[in-house]
Amino acid sequence: MPVTMTDVTLIHPVILCGGSGTRLWPKSRKVMPKPFLPLFGNQTLFQQACTRCGDAGQFAPPTIVAGSAHVDLIAQQSPAKDTQIIVEPAARNTAPAIALAAARIDPQAIMLVCPSDHHIADTQAFRDAAAAAANLARAGKLVAFGITPDRPETGYGYIKRGGELDGGFAIERFVEKPDLARAEAFLADGGYAWNGGIFTFRAGQLLDELSQHRPDMVQAVKDAVANGHSDGAQFHPDSAAFAAIEGDSIDYALMENTQNAAMVPVAMGWSDIGDWSALLEALESDEQGNSCSAPNAELVDCANVLAVSDGPRISAIGLEDIIVVVDGDEVLVTRRQDAQRVGKLGGAQDQ
Amino acid sequence: MPVTMTDVTLIHPVILCGGSGTRLWPKSRKVMPKPFLPLFGNQTLFQQACTRCGDAGQFAPPTIVAGSAHVDLIAQQSPAKDTQIIVEPAARNTAPAIALAAARIDPQAIMLVCPSDHHIADTQAFRDAAAAAANLARAGKLVAFGITPDRPETGYGYIKRGGELDGGFAIERFVEKPDLARAEAFLADGGYAWNGGIFTFRAGQLLDELSQHRPDMVQAVKDAVANGHSDGAQFHPDSAAFAAIEGDSIDYALMENTQNAAMVPVAMGWSDIGDWSALLEALESDEQGNSCSAPNAELVDCANVLAVSDGPRISAIGLEDIIVVVDGDEVLVTRRQDAQRVGKLGGAQDQ
Repeated sequence: MPVTMTDVTLIHPVILCGGSGTRLWPKSRKVMPKPFLPLFGNQTLFQQACTRCGDAGQFAPPTIVAGSAHVDLIAQQSPAKDTQIIVEPAARNTAPAIALAAARIDPQAIMLVCPSDHHIADTQAFRDAAAAAANLARAGKLVAFGITPDRPETGYGYIKRGGELDGGFAIERFVEKPDLARAEAFLADGGYAWNGGIFTFRAGQLLDELSQHRPDMVQAVKDAVANGHSDGAQFHPDSAAFAAIEGDSIDYALMENTQNAAMVPVAMGWSDIGDWSALLEALESDEQGNSCSAPNAELVDCANVLAVSDGPRISAIGLEDIIVVVDGDEVLVTRRQDAQRVGKLGGAQDQ
Repeated sequence: MPVTMTDVTLIHPVILCGGSGTRLWPKSRKVMPKPFLPLFGNQTLFQQACTRCGDAGQFAPPTIVAGSAHVDLIAQQSPAKDTQIIVEPAARNTAPAIALAAARIDPQAIMLVCPSDHHIADTQAFRDAAAAAANLARAGKLVAFGITPDRPETGYGYIKRGGELDGGFAIERFVEKPDLARAEAFLADGGYAWNGGIFTFRAGQLLDELSQHRPDMVQAVKDAVANGHSDGAQFHPDSAAFAAIEGDSIDYALMENTQNAAMVPVAMGWSDIGDWSALLEALESDEQGNSCSAPNAELVDCANVLAVSDGPRISAIGLEDIIVVVDGDEVLVTRRQDAQRVGKLGGAQDQ
């Protein structure tokens, strides 16, 4: 089994580029999905994910797990030297993707698994949490970042914390996306955090524990790595072995089942940028709550409006809580509260 | 003075093409203003105006009054043979434009002055009203079409009718655009009609009466015609004489002052298509009140939405009483109630 040279004193970032981001259509498209869009300033979300882990004193060079369609985008955008890319032969959700990365590095290495399409405003808070999580991981914990909620969000899963640990907490249980009443109760309780899909663990422990719950999956991943081949900085797992895996999320496959689950609480200005409304919330806006990424846009008597255009001028009057996105041959106009439904539009489905 | 051959038994349509239609920006632009847009089906408003007067048993060929910028559009679009075009050397409002046409035809001829940028759903009602107005005009009246109001509109001027005449009424007075309370009172009263800017009178009487109130204007028009020149179907009044005129509307210059004002009441599905909201009202719409003139548009949970596009697909979710117009390099999104303000947008002003 080919194993990459590993410095086990560093944290090894594993950046997952699997998301399709159809709810950010028409900006996010199959050929240019959400992680690779410069939604904040000049950097893309993927570049920001890499840059967050760019402190060479704390982090090893990142390992990127992505589909073959996005390898060129990653090569173009990657700000990190020595980036390793593991090319997923098929999309099988997060557990196999993470296991692939784990099987490619030293079993003693501490992995930090990050989605590539989230926004984190406070890099230092992220790095501090990574350090705390790494300490817990070295002590044998499988650690989730528990993001301190600032609103009763119904779009995220929650983590109920248990007893205090050194630099974090045990996890009492994971909670599926709640309804509003439960989300409000969670917020009032104070013992609940959002599950942001960011995890830290020792690579070997991840594989060992996952083997207990999904032995088939881990065996297939090991086979795919053993029969894979390298091509420069890219590693191609064996396609047949990997494609045979029944996909699952790391949450379902492992985190909700392990006795070693822990969490580090962190407030870092996090958003999954799950839809256009979430993007507007995360972006800087003017006094009326409007945010424009559109040349020469004119917003008259508008409030809480997001205007995005790749060229044509957007002129708007009297809009409130509305998203307008112009991209190529597509024009999207939606109420903010309907932003979650964008992925179901014909345009988003048919691309 | 060159006078066009005239059959005084027919009604002589005079179609005014002076409006800029900036409130229908970005579809209506300086190079392609409102009258020349196919806002209803395949015909443009100008073509519809010509076609309404296309019954050769009732109407003579039309005389078009327009600026030089639009002569080519008129030549391309005109459905009528023998169309005469009077090319205004400068825009001086409706009174000089109408006087130009009056000075070019037989003084005994009955003129029917029509804007080129209005919509009239019921052509037969229009023609019947034209016949009634012509009868009153032959009897020495200056006749306005009085459009039966169906709502307390504050965007139009009103006509208060007086004593009954043969086929119409005298006009007691003209009323400026009212506030909502007055508009509601007018509607309840039943004696008020909208002033649609459609007028009928004998050409000679028009000039004679206008001379009493604006002798300077009529003299300048006569000079402009005397010193003008024909070029095929186009007549070019003398530029210097015409440009020196102080412009005025026919309402202010004459109709509000004459003792011979009369009106014919008419309900003909009229709209001045004054803005995008008025267009939506006049267009056919689906059960939710939506109207699309946009390829492949997808409107999800929308009501009273107008979607217009010259190419890009419009996808919308959850909108109510919203106008979306995509035209070339411009995208307009406005609340219906703000549609009147479109003409003040930077894009509409700067074109």
